[in-house]
Amino acid sequence: MSSQFHHIGIVIRPKTPHLPELVNSLVTFLLDKGINVYLDEDARSDLKDLPHLHKCTFVHKKEMGQRCDLAISFGGDGTLLSIAREIAPYRVPLIGVNRGSLGFLTQVPYHNAVDDVAIMLTGKYSIEERILLETNVYRKQKEVYQSLALNDVVFNRGATGQMIEFEVFINKEFVYTQRSDGLIVSTPTGSTAYSLAAGGPILQPTLHALTLVPICPQSMTNRPIAVSDTGEIKVVMRRGTDIKLHCDGQAYFDLEKFDHIKIRRYHNSLRILQPSDYRYFGTLRQKLHWGEQLV
Amino acid sequence: MSSQFHHIGIVIRPKTPHLPELVNSLVTFLLDKGINVYLDEDARSDLKDLPHLHKCTFVHKKEMGQRCDLAISFGGDGTLLSIAREIAPYRVPLIGVNRGSLGFLTQVPYHNAVDDVAIMLTGKYSIEERILLETNVYRKQKEVYQSLALNDVVFNRGATGQMIEFEVFINKEFVYTQRSDGLIVSTPTGSTAYSLAAGGPILQPTLHALTLVPICPQSMTNRPIAVSDTGEIKVVMRRGTDIKLHCDGQAYFDLEKFDHIKIRRYHNSLRILQPSDYRYFGTLRQKLHWGEQLV
Amino acid sequence: MSSQFHHIGIVIRPKTPHLPELVNSLVTFLLDKGINVYLDEDARSDLKDLPHLHKCTFVHKKEMGQRCDLAISFGGDGTLLSIAREIAPYRVPLIGVNRGSLGFLTQVPYHNAVDDVAIMLTGKYSIEERILLETNVYRKQKEVYQSLALNDVVFNRGATGQMIEFEVFINKEFVYTQRSDGLIVSTPTGSTAYSLAAGGPILQPTLHALTLVPICPQSMTNRPIAVSDTGEIKVVMRRGTDIKLHCDGQAYFDLEKFDHIKIRRYHNSLRILQPSDYRYFGTLRQKLHWGEQLV
Amino acid sequence: MSSQFHHIGIVIRPKTPHLPELVNSLVTFLLDKGINVYLDEDARSDLKDLPHLHKCTFVHKKEMGQRCDLAISFGGDGTLLSIAREIAPYRVPLIGVNRGSLGFLTQVPYHNAVDDVAIMLTGKYSIEERILLETNVYRKQKEVYQSLALNDVVFNRGATGQMIEFEVFINKEFVYTQRSDGLIVSTPTGSTAYSLAAGGPILQPTLHALTLVPICPQSMTNRPIAVSDTGEIKVVMRRGTDIKLHCDGQAYFDLEKFDHIKIRRYHNSLRILQPSDYRYFGTLRQKLHWGEQLV
Repeated sequence: MSSQFHHIGIVIRPKTPHLPELVNSLVTFLLDKGINVYLDEDARSDLKDLPHLHKCTFVHKKEMGQRCDLAISFGGDGTLLSIAREIAPYRVPLIGVNRGSLGFLTQVPYHNAVDDVAIMLTGKYSIEERILLETNVYRKQKEVYQSLALNDVVFNRGATGQMIEFEVFINKEFVYTQRSDGLIVSTPTGSTAYSLAAGGPILQPTLHALTLVPICPQSMTNRPIAVSDTGEIKVVMRRGTDIKLHCDGQAYFDLEKFDHIKIRRYHNSLRILQPSDYRYFGTLRQKLHWGEQLV
Repeated sequence: MSSQFHHIGIVIRPKTPHLPELVNSLVTFLLDKGINVYLDEDARSDLKDLPHLHKCTFVHKKEMGQRCDLAISFGGDGTLLSIAREIAPYRVPLIGVNRGSLGFLTQVPYHNAVDDVAIMLTGKYSIEERILLETNVYRKQKEVYQSLALNDVVFNRGATGQMIEFEVFINKEFVYTQRSDGLIVSTPTGSTAYSLAAGGPILQPTLHALTLVPICPQSMTNRPIAVSDTGEIKVVMRRGTDIKLHCDGQAYFDLEKFDHIKIRRYHNSLRILQPSDYRYFGTLRQKLHWGEQLV
Repeated sequence: MSSQFHHIGIVIRPKTPHLPELVNSLVTFLLDKGINVYLDEDARSDLKDLPHLHKCTFVHKKEMGQRCDLAISFGGDGTLLSIAREIAPYRVPLIGVNRGSLGFLTQVPYHNAVDDVAIMLTGKYSIEERILLETNVYRKQKEVYQSLALNDVVFNRGATGQMIEFEVFINKEFVYTQRSDGLIVSTPTGSTAYSLAAGGPILQPTLHALTLVPICPQSMTNRPIAVSDTGEIKVVMRRGTDIKLHCDGQAYFDLEKFDHIKIRRYHNSLRILQPSDYRYFGTLRQKLHWGEQLV
Repeated sequence: MSSQFHHIGIVIRPKTPHLPELVNSLVTFLLDKGINVYLDEDARSDLKDLPHLHKCTFVHKKEMGQRCDLAISFGGDGTLLSIAREIAPYRVPLIGVNRGSLGFLTQVPYHNAVDDVAIMLTGKYSIEERILLETNVYRKQKEVYQSLALNDVVFNRGATGQMIEFEVFINKEFVYTQRSDGLIVSTPTGSTAYSLAAGGPILQPTLHALTLVPICPQSMTNRPIAVSDTGEIKVVMRRGTDIKLHCDGQAYFDLEKFDHIKIRRYHNSLRILQPSDYRYFGTLRQKLHWGEQLV
């Protein structure tokens, strides 16, 4: 059967044993089907011994959205996050292949990846739409930074500093002034990542909501809050030194006192292609050791 | 100015000092405006000395929805909950007058209630739509109970029993088997009530979500989950004795092993009329001692 | 080698497949060694087919402390708790055999129980001293109840009631008035049981401490408190209906408003004999899925 | 009445309005009594206008333990912590004067400080003994850092890094490998400080215990653990960049992979002199808004 996709980008976790061999099998299969293959520039040294290298094109992650109609990530959730932010603006869908253990986002198992991907290319998949966050930082009324995030936007204090202090507004309504180690603004996707470690709730992926989860807040009544993903969250930094803003724990930016940070749902969502038998709660059960059905 | 409402029901917290005097002032004002006043049958003894009693009609809470085009609750959130479930099917709006301290739902302060209500009757208010939960219990395929709830539906073990065990499904997808003291299914409205005491997140009132909050679960990974309010939650009781189902901590029902409980968003939402200066997060800040704005 | 113990009591979890066969093997072994065997009266029907039944003596749990110099519990932590409270006053040591999966208290694995117990009888064991709690309930200055607990003493509301309200004093110093579903007073032993589900900390078994862990407290600042085990905890019930007091989740008593409850460390501690290779944190790691040592 | 103390050191929170005037009143009183007054070198510019400056001696905090038989701290808990670590080796007692609002450690109220201190100098006080932690860092078998802490020893990741990973041993017994933002090892004194924000329990000050409180641990079963203060806690760093060790959130040190950190109770404890009417739980009630006694 023929593939729905004709330009496929491949991203891999660097320096990962056995991944190049797996990628080789998939590339051989794809080329054989007449599909154009684009390899992540950052993986050039990892993939330098690929036999069919000359038939592939190396591109930067930033270009993949324009060049490809599908991206495949090999590695953990971190690898997937790094390409997700780049292709989301182009609505390019994404398949996540894990490295042996199930990931929240990387559902295709490593050991059977070529066969599973082959099936998915023929249209046998389910589509999950996952929202992203768009963050803009303003300093003295000027925009100084912007970024996308699939999991979360985190403000936190530096390793040596005191607690930070900031004001939060939702749709211009003042919510509170908080003193804490930081704040996590999480999507449903991010609710099973860092947010969970900080005490946040789990959000069903399809929920139109974001959570504000304080990190070690001084006041015990500063509990996680879930708000609509249609609103605008504004944070005004009031006190702190060495404050960092992180997007997906990967991109980061140095914040200063009086910075205004605006966080909104990004206009595009990310499309993740999942194997047809994918069940969200099944993944949660397995990863969180939840109780199986009796009888 | 004339009132938008012509048939007003009044419900009060029983045996509460000074409330009858306050109700008397309001009733006098309403009758004077030519408004028909309906008093809660359950408050008959509390209100027996009302001078204008003969001009009012006593009705049961159950009838208020049919007879009135507005209900006013005097007392705490508990008093408001007791009438909310009765009038929601008729889309009759509700005003909550508190007894001195701000309630999450009862925003009109006691000391100035007649003036404030008078202003609201002329149309100066904001409308909050709050979702309700509809719960149906099935035993051997037969429905044996149904109820509405504005805050929460709670399953819990009896005072002497062991932990209970049950399966949870969302839209027929199996979520988990849980062993715990119980489970709270909460609306956004209920998220600041019992759910908060059990470790649940706060949900913005307008969020289209419900939360499943375990009560003292045996497994530490059974964390609060927020799901869409368009789905159907099904709970199947597997183990436990003396299991109770509560709606808003008021109506309750004895559950048995193998009972199926279905919980969905009720087709009508409750309309609460709030004073024009009402701000949700302002109420939270005050009740939870959150930090005020700096500067 | 000869046994250090000459009068051994045996308690079993009722209606448990394969347990009677295992007990038979052990009884045969013990009788063969000339040891007197005492069987729990409550297990009479479970053990009615034991070939050597006529050489054993059935006694009530309450008598085992006086008759035996060692007790062996077969089953889960619950079975062990039920005999622990009875023998602690007599300083009779206890061995816990589990039913396949490691228990916090039942360390001897089922599959090799006779051999392992045989080795322990020769003196190859380590002794763990675990404190117990003594609870006395006073109503109008009169003692109306008393009990021991190895895990915890719990006050909680009935299945249908409102939150309960009570005052707590430590060494006569007023601590707080609390509104909640209840309070757990836990020993270090109990800190990995119900207390953990309610959010309490884990206490090293040798720590001379008790914890007060609120169950779903209305105030989020009512956090778990660890206090010295030399002090006296007094609880005065102020509000609530259908309030129960539980010891180890087994014995319970109906509390009334104005009851005074005193909880102190019991003058004797329980001696649990553990296999020589027992490591407390090893058990925790296994039961709580903690991370193993790297390298 | 004459003072029990003859050499009194004074430490103040820098750049704090009105503090110099208050210190002046106290210094005048002390000099008048013939007491030798030692002022903190770090406060020289704050106190430069003190009329009796020439009769006082400026010393470094480090010297105060040798020169004084009492230290008085003016400011918050932070100011008190900074001198506590310096004088604890000399067993010099400490009085904490706050700046208006009650501190956990600074019980003497600002507005009446001279009178209150005057009374305490005559012997009217109660003594609280608070344990300190001694921390030693070893790199390739060599000690590279040591420090004392009254509140807590904290390991945490830098602002930009990933979670850190480390092994914990108690009395050489392996406890677990943890992945988290960090770990707090807290004294009872520190249990109401940062540890509380991270979800730790409150420890009665007289409890002979320490707590290990994970900061945002990846595994939800990594819960706070309370252990005896007679044991030795060893932490071995396994993974992480930009890892910091903090003592009382003030002194800090850069940790490296493979560093071994040993934490033990320091042989001396700190003696805090409290006003005679001091009640520990009264302070907690006030600071945490706990419920007061009914009736």
